[in-house]
Order: sequence, then C-alpha cells, then structure tokens
Amino acid sequence: MEKATLLFAENGYETTTLRDVAKAVGVTRTALYHYVTSKEELLAMLVEQMSLNLAKALAELRAREDLTPEGKLRQLVDSLVRQRAESPHQFRVHDQTESALSEPLRTRHRQARRDVLAALSGVIEEGVARGEFKPLDPKVAAFSVLGMCNWVAWWYRPGADYDIDTVTRQISQSAIDMVIVADAPRTPADSARTALAVARSSLDALERLLPSEG
Amino acid sequence: MEKATLLFAENGYETTTLRDVAKAVGVTRTALYHYVTSKEELLAMLVEQMSLNLAKALAELRAREDLTPEGKLRQLVDSLVRQRAESPHQFRVHDQTESALSEPLRTRHRQARRDVLAALSGVIEEGVARGEFKPLDPKVAAFSVLGMCNWVAWWYRPGADYDIDTVTRQISQSAIDMVIVADAPRTPADSARTALAVARSSLDALERLLPSEG
Repeated sequence: MEKATLLFAENGYETTTLRDVAKAVGVTRTALYHYVTSKEELLAMLVEQMSLNLAKALAELRAREDLTPEGKLRQLVDSLVRQRAESPHQFRVHDQTESALSEPLRTRHRQARRDVLAALSGVIEEGVARGEFKPLDPKVAAFSVLGMCNWVAWWYRPGADYDIDTVTRQISQSAIDMVIVADAPRTPADSARTALAVARSSLDALERLLPSEG
Repeated sequence: MEKATLLFAENGYETTTLRDVAKAVGVTRTALYHYVTSKEELLAMLVEQMSLNLAKALAELRAREDLTPEGKLRQLVDSLVRQRAESPHQFRVHDQTESALSEPLRTRHRQARRDVLAALSGVIEEGVARGEFKPLDPKVAAFSVLGMCNWVAWWYRPGADYDIDTVTRQISQSAIDMVIVADAPRTPADSARTALAVARSSLDALERLLPSEG
C-alpha cells in the first residue's frame, strides 16, 4: 500500500496501473491480484486506512470529559501532525483522487473530512464558550489549525532536518497560542467587554497617530 | 486562463486537452491556437502569472525598512490569503502539475516557492532576533503560517459563508498571535496600521459575541 500510494502521488492515480504497482512491489501482476482485484479497490483500502480511522479517533478525543479545550486541542493537533508526517503521500493522494472514488466510499470519505473539521471546530467553540479561547470564528480557526497540520504532508520529510517530536510540539503550541486567552480562564460575559476594550484602545492609539489637523 | 485552470483542477492536467479548453471558452481550437500553441505554454503562463509575481512581491515586502516584523508578517499573510482565496484552482493545480512543467520553468517555479518561504521565515527570524517574537524555529513557524494561508485554497469559496476581509483579518491576527511575545515593545513606525487591524479584528470578535437578532 505504501508503494501504491507513492506511485499514485508521483505519477498520478489515472496513469498508474496495477502492473506498475506489482512491478514496484516486486511481484507478478497475478500475485498482486490475489490481494486486490482492481486499482479502485486499492484506493478504497488506502482511504479506509487513513481518513476514516483518523476521523473516528478525533471525534472520540473531542468527546472526552477529562480534558480541557486546551488539552483536547493539543492532542488533536498532535494526532493530525503525526498522521500527516507519517503518511504524506497518502494524504496528498486523497486530496487529488477524491473524484476517482466511487460510491459509497466517496460519501464516506467526505463525511470523514467533515468529521475532522467538526472535531476541531467543536473543541474551539467549547473553548470560546468557556472564555478560555479568544472569541474567534470557530470554523475559520479550525481551518487555520487544519491547514497548519495538513501542510506538514507537503514539507516534512522523516530523517531530514527535523525530528517529528520537535515539529509536533511547536505546531501544537502554535495552535494553542493562536486561540488561547493569555490569562484564562475568563467568564464568557467578560470576552465581549475585553473585545470592546481592545478595540477602543486601538482606536485611541490610532487617533494619537493621526497628524493633528489645521 | 481561468477556464483552463478550472479544467486542469477538475479533470487533471494530463487528461485535459487544448480542445477542452477551447470548448469551455466557447471558441474554436484554431482561434485558441492564436493565443497559445500548446497546453504546456498555457500552464507556463499560469505559473508565471501566479507564483513568480507573488514571490517577488513578498520578497519586496520583507525588505521594507519602514515596517516592524509584526507589520511585515501581517501584510505577508494578507497577500497570501487573498491570493489563495482569489485563485484557489490555480494554486492547487500548481501543486499537482509541477512534474508536468518543463525546464527552465520548473526550476523557476521551485525557486519561487523557496522565495515565498524565505520571505516568511526571514521576517520571523527578524522578529525573534529583536525579541518581539517567541524563540520559535523560524522555518517550522513559516511552514505553519504558510499552511494556514495555503489551506484557504481548499476551503474558502467566494460568496459563501465568509467575506474575504473578515477571513483575512482573523488569519493575519492568528499568525501574529502564534509568534508574538505578548508584552513586546512596539515601534511607532507602522503601528497605525497595526492599531487599525487590531481594532477591526476586535470588532469582528465583538460582532460574533452579540446574541443574534430576531
């Protein structure tokens, strides 16, 4: 499956044949047919292995009652970054081959993507409601965190410049710094007041910076 | 070029022909040949238009002496997010078709990508050196910011749930919150722009906190 992913990623799903996969693995096409009967089935197995399992794990993490929103966000980001770092080709192939998936897998794959987003934005919403996170738009914030994590599949290469633990720690912390209120916890009522105060003092600063008239 | 980008994105660069492009534009293939002689040339024009111009603009922004690292980061993120939001197909097509580019364009495209990364990590490095940004690894931080911006090409659709100004403000502020030391001294040079941006994003936050009317 690793070889197939690599071939799909490098040469494109459309132009890759099962013969190419057999050759890369070092077996005959007949031997490969023993395990998978079509290229489509191989792709389906890859999707099953990655997207659906990850979505399930993140949804479970979101539902945990022993963690604060900050703790949940840290673990969600941790799982996402590690998954993208471990299977970069798989992730990018899915992005490029969604239209090649046939039903019902295509629908399930899309649902899995929505579940990942729902887990992230749900945790952010919870943090905002508790006054522990800034009053951000939860979905835009979730997409921002997601982009930061997903991008790992584009740039990180194992054994190159960085070890995965360092990368994961920095990205998790960055995600938290993006959303957290520095001196949390605050009551939700206080956040509107804070936003207003910050806006006002920014406008004051702006006024002072204007050239004086006349 | 928009039509070509859309076709490349939807059906894949390999399987799209100039005939398809002509049909989508509503002209004959002969008429299209008047402007471009091959599919490769069309792709080259797309790359030229997007990647190289953006890389140049960001490099210039990085070199400006009238802006603090915070001001530069805000404007870099602003440019990136707007570009990704305006040409999502273009961005994703480039990601998928780099191997289809022929030399010397392929080398130039890669260089442009490196230049974008260098502009971002250079600004972060400058902020760290001045003690205004947290002591992060500048490259990992740059990739994180880049992922956040690039991902806009995957999820943002004009005219849907969000307007681009709100999205851009939140993402710029998130990028800054990721890196900035809370009590950093600010130089007055670009703080008018900063004050305005902070005020606006505080007002956005305030709006979201209001109970919905009706």
